[in-house]
Amino acid sequence: MHSYSQTVRVGVAGATGYAGQELVGLLARHPEVDLRAAMSSTAESAVRPMPRLARVFEGSLEPLNIDRLKKDVDIAFLAVPEQAAADLGTALVDAGVRVIDLSGAFRIKDDAQRSKWYPATKSMPAGAAYGLVEHFREDVKDAQLVACPGCYPTAALLALLPLVKAGLLDVSAGVIVDAKSGISGAGRTPSDRTHFSENHGSVSAYGIFNHRHVAEMQQELGAEVTFVPHLVPLDRGILETIYVKLTPGTTADAVSSTFEAAYGKEPFVRLTGDALPEIKHVAWTNFCDIGWRLEPGTRRLVLVACLDNLIKGAAGQALQNFNVACGFDERTGLR
Amino acid sequence: MHSYSQTVRVGVAGATGYAGQELVGLLARHPEVDLRAAMSSTAESAVRPMPRLARVFEGSLEPLNIDRLKKDVDIAFLAVPEQAAADLGTALVDAGVRVIDLSGAFRIKDDAQRSKWYPATKSMPAGAAYGLVEHFREDVKDAQLVACPGCYPTAALLALLPLVKAGLLDVSAGVIVDAKSGISGAGRTPSDRTHFSENHGSVSAYGIFNHRHVAEMQQELGAEVTFVPHLVPLDRGILETIYVKLTPGTTADAVSSTFEAAYGKEPFVRLTGDALPEIKHVAWTNFCDIGWRLEPGTRRLVLVACLDNLIKGAAGQALQNFNVACGFDERTGLR
Amino acid sequence: MHSYSQTVRVGVAGATGYAGQELVGLLARHPEVDLRAAMSSTAESAVRPMPRLARVFEGSLEPLNIDRLKKDVDIAFLAVPEQAAADLGTALVDAGVRVIDLSGAFRIKDDAQRSKWYPATKSMPAGAAYGLVEHFREDVKDAQLVACPGCYPTAALLALLPLVKAGLLDVSAGVIVDAKSGISGAGRTPSDRTHFSENHGSVSAYGIFNHRHVAEMQQELGAEVTFVPHLVPLDRGILETIYVKLTPGTTADAVSSTFEAAYGKEPFVRLTGDALPEIKHVAWTNFCDIGWRLEPGTRRLVLVACLDNLIKGAAGQALQNFNVACGFDERTGLR
Amino acid sequence: MHSYSQTVRVGVAGATGYAGQELVGLLARHPEVDLRAAMSSTAESAVRPMPRLARVFEGSLEPLNIDRLKKDVDIAFLAVPEQAAADLGTALVDAGVRVIDLSGAFRIKDDAQRSKWYPATKSMPAGAAYGLVEHFREDVKDAQLVACPGCYPTAALLALLPLVKAGLLDVSAGVIVDAKSGISGAGRTPSDRTHFSENHGSVSAYGIFNHRHVAEMQQELGAEVTFVPHLVPLDRGILETIYVKLTPGTTADAVSSTFEAAYGKEPFVRLTGDALPEIKHVAWTNFCDIGWRLEPGTRRLVLVACLDNLIKGAAGQALQNFNVACGFDERTGLR
Repeated sequence: MHSYSQTVRVGVAGATGYAGQELVGLLARHPEVDLRAAMSSTAESAVRPMPRLARVFEGSLEPLNIDRLKKDVDIAFLAVPEQAAADLGTALVDAGVRVIDLSGAFRIKDDAQRSKWYPATKSMPAGAAYGLVEHFREDVKDAQLVACPGCYPTAALLALLPLVKAGLLDVSAGVIVDAKSGISGAGRTPSDRTHFSENHGSVSAYGIFNHRHVAEMQQELGAEVTFVPHLVPLDRGILETIYVKLTPGTTADAVSSTFEAAYGKEPFVRLTGDALPEIKHVAWTNFCDIGWRLEPGTRRLVLVACLDNLIKGAAGQALQNFNVACGFDERTGLR
Repeated sequence: MHSYSQTVRVGVAGATGYAGQELVGLLARHPEVDLRAAMSSTAESAVRPMPRLARVFEGSLEPLNIDRLKKDVDIAFLAVPEQAAADLGTALVDAGVRVIDLSGAFRIKDDAQRSKWYPATKSMPAGAAYGLVEHFREDVKDAQLVACPGCYPTAALLALLPLVKAGLLDVSAGVIVDAKSGISGAGRTPSDRTHFSENHGSVSAYGIFNHRHVAEMQQELGAEVTFVPHLVPLDRGILETIYVKLTPGTTADAVSSTFEAAYGKEPFVRLTGDALPEIKHVAWTNFCDIGWRLEPGTRRLVLVACLDNLIKGAAGQALQNFNVACGFDERTGLR
Repeated sequence: MHSYSQTVRVGVAGATGYAGQELVGLLARHPEVDLRAAMSSTAESAVRPMPRLARVFEGSLEPLNIDRLKKDVDIAFLAVPEQAAADLGTALVDAGVRVIDLSGAFRIKDDAQRSKWYPATKSMPAGAAYGLVEHFREDVKDAQLVACPGCYPTAALLALLPLVKAGLLDVSAGVIVDAKSGISGAGRTPSDRTHFSENHGSVSAYGIFNHRHVAEMQQELGAEVTFVPHLVPLDRGILETIYVKLTPGTTADAVSSTFEAAYGKEPFVRLTGDALPEIKHVAWTNFCDIGWRLEPGTRRLVLVACLDNLIKGAAGQALQNFNVACGFDERTGLR
Repeated sequence: MHSYSQTVRVGVAGATGYAGQELVGLLARHPEVDLRAAMSSTAESAVRPMPRLARVFEGSLEPLNIDRLKKDVDIAFLAVPEQAAADLGTALVDAGVRVIDLSGAFRIKDDAQRSKWYPATKSMPAGAAYGLVEHFREDVKDAQLVACPGCYPTAALLALLPLVKAGLLDVSAGVIVDAKSGISGAGRTPSDRTHFSENHGSVSAYGIFNHRHVAEMQQELGAEVTFVPHLVPLDRGILETIYVKLTPGTTADAVSSTFEAAYGKEPFVRLTGDALPEIKHVAWTNFCDIGWRLEPGTRRLVLVACLDNLIKGAAGQALQNFNVACGFDERTGLR
């Protein structure tokens, strides 16, 4: 495991997107971090103001500069689009800089699948880990590059992996994930899709059957996933309603004790049991809340999982990975 | 069929709830209607103002008065809670007044099921019809009482009934209905559940596995339905994402042509096909929009249906039933 | 006054913007209108779909074609940006086509003021009227071109003009208009300003001291106006809180009776008196609601006026002008 | 000044209201605090769950118990209604417990004014301070009771006091405060006023001319204030647009340098100057952002101030006062 004798020198590439800003805000308050560089991937966005971070982040934005990252930081966070992340991630790891990547560039392990969904990624760097901390904590500790999970897979996998591992899920029946996401998940770039008036008072499905996050869910679950994401008129938060079948004979108690064993000591997963979780209770936090109900007289289980897509689904989870990778208390800077 | 030589004398019981107000607004502008009475079921609500309806409805609110309804109206609309509707509906039909009921009191035909879900309903009046006009138009024409479908079943049944009738649905695989509803669906009574701050920026599941609308869906579909309704932070509108399996060999073309045959001439159902519908496009209208996608390489079909819960899901559908029951153009007062 | 022996042939330039779509929807249902052309000012937007209008407007969108407007329509509605409206308006009037213009191009009568705020407008066509129907109905009847008031001035002028005309306002004290507007007022073009996430959960002031609508308010009121518009997180609606001083000795009764005399018979202005108006009660209608309170022991009057910016503030007011200009009942197609 | 050799023993009365919950969340993470008691003023609300605080506050809710507060805590926070705060505040101070009161009970110094607006308050305890830290920091240090300012006055006074103190404000011209507030400001109790559907898509004025916060503003400013609060459809945040006149000869530079002198070193006031502040940038923080514009050619100044009503306007400001009263770094637990 890495250990740092003093504050860790850190840089952020992609500081002005929604996840990037959140990350800069968290890092600026992290007691073990020396935030050396907040870079914006395009000249245009380099000058976009971040009024929310005034007095929080006292540094200045600068254009993306890979040489400076190689020279001045121990760990680089990438909050840039996949194409840029694929290039930067490889180059930085080669130069000995550890990388926490928030993009999808390095999430898919199978070469064929990755080529299909993330063609910009030429190859996986040695020492890459999939940063779902609750399930891959040991991998993260020594990783050179951490591929942070997508916002949708984070909720789905936290809800489903304990059941899969315990063999309680009838995998052959398939998994249905109906996700409701706030608009910040669609990014900061203005478009018809992110226009206020197109979303206020509305709900819409999008990306049906061709969303890249399906590949990531299927990789970890080993099950077919039907995934339908929806935009709902709120800014931040994802709630997923997940429909599965249990293996014959699985009881409600078995489900509860499996979850308790998996997450009873996890700092950022809260089990709500019968009292289903709501986005309001996790917004602006790094918690993922998980509840469930077994449909009476059937093997049908409905799980509900929710999180803040910009924190536990992006910047917060990245920081949690950072803490693990540096040997800090996992909660540092995240409370 | 009934025919009315002049304007139809109409009364509304329950005029101050959200559906009731919508109904009063529609009836006040209906060219064939003489709105004789707008009654509020409780003394308290009888004096609740309806500022939105100023200049639209020029009459005055009055307390509920069944004798006056018996004497002064040809057709009574009931927008009151089930208990009250059960009593009023039977009494009015007995007195020869036709009834359009927006409550659930008379939706369930099977006595045992009805006793379970709507115990206030002592018996079904003769001449009761289930008012899903697009599928039961003939029944409605001569009905003494029309039980308007619930808001959730309206969308689900319009989306699924054509497939069931055509034998394209693998009924044994079950049906999953994941519904997202605006808060007006929870009614006008203030509660923690309807508080602005509990819903803004949030999404929550509720009524899971024990919502009365399931009984109604199962009655019409003859299939097991897993139904999870959610509250989303908007006022009016429901969007349902429906997960089903098709029978082997069913093609995308078969699905399309089945829908086209069912609804091509219906004035209030719009088929969007691949371009999935959004609440924004149906809010404040009597349209139900339906789209669908067949998951490539599978028999899994995802349908998306949406409507305005206060119009097509309540007051508008009630008026549509009224038009059919009176022999008017079905669109009168609904454009 | 014009009179039309049959349905009026109408065209819309700028059919795909938010006001344009609203207009097409209203015109398509207007019993005296033959909607001949729905044109989009740019090739790009000509193909933008309008799913909300499916089954309502059965025609097709076409690119802007001034020759066809000259040839095929009696009256053209312009819902295009000022630059285009300035050109089109003049050319169409010259060709004998009557024009209802929703832009600002022809609202300012003083040449110097107009040159400053709307430099694209070369000159005012003969027969131009300022289309605030409640105050200039006679001018509209015979107008060749109607310049529909801006959304903000419509509310402010309806609230203030009766007091100014009656001499009850201390004009020397100035007028303060604090306006809260839904985001559709910022138009359909995606931008940082109209991004959902920038507005959800937020309120912001904009255009302070340099908004063109000030010129329009000052022109009609003959008073200095301090105007601060704000974006609030809703789609449609404007509420203005207006702070003025009354002339010495003006009583609350004088204010009430002045408003009653001005608007008691107006179909689209509702006086709420002490019970202040709310956007919810006017959204999706052509009403402007006006309430007021006299601050006890002072000459300070606070007025609150609200309307739907896309209807009474744009398309609905345009149709109201159309009805007056054609000699129809002013409410036709607006109920 | 007080100094505490170890963590300060703290209790909260009124832990389940919106401000109370926020306070419990902040105190639970404050490194110098031993949160001994979270009490709910009513038996009913004592059992209301606080799912957002799971894993954050590990203690349990208990009914209000003044004896336990007297015995077990050094400092008590009161987040209860005025009536209860008036009684509790006096009794606790008499028992030697320091009090941070979030209610209005002890804000008004003048006996006649206080009797009018807060009749439940029998008298002011000795050692009471008005807790607008930026202007009364010295008073707070030794206070036995801190009356935290109201949410609306906090923004208005932070914006206006520097100008008043510097003599730049033409006090005789009066002050107009047009405030836009999120719904959490109306409290957790369900009512028509706080119903989601009454506020979504709407804006409404309320409490006009009789809001108790006017007394507080006038007390500190020594000027007549016209105050109109509005509810806007968001959860948390207040933005105030303030219209004043400057004294003759006051320049824009004088305004800027006055603000810079007043707040340049304040940790929780940010000056945005010409770039007007927005609620989005202060939500979930303890910042108050202030911007302003001088209307060209006039003495009219428009100020815009905003804050999070539950943090800087309530729980955060209370904690800031607590930090000052205990001699801690003012920012402890507030970053």
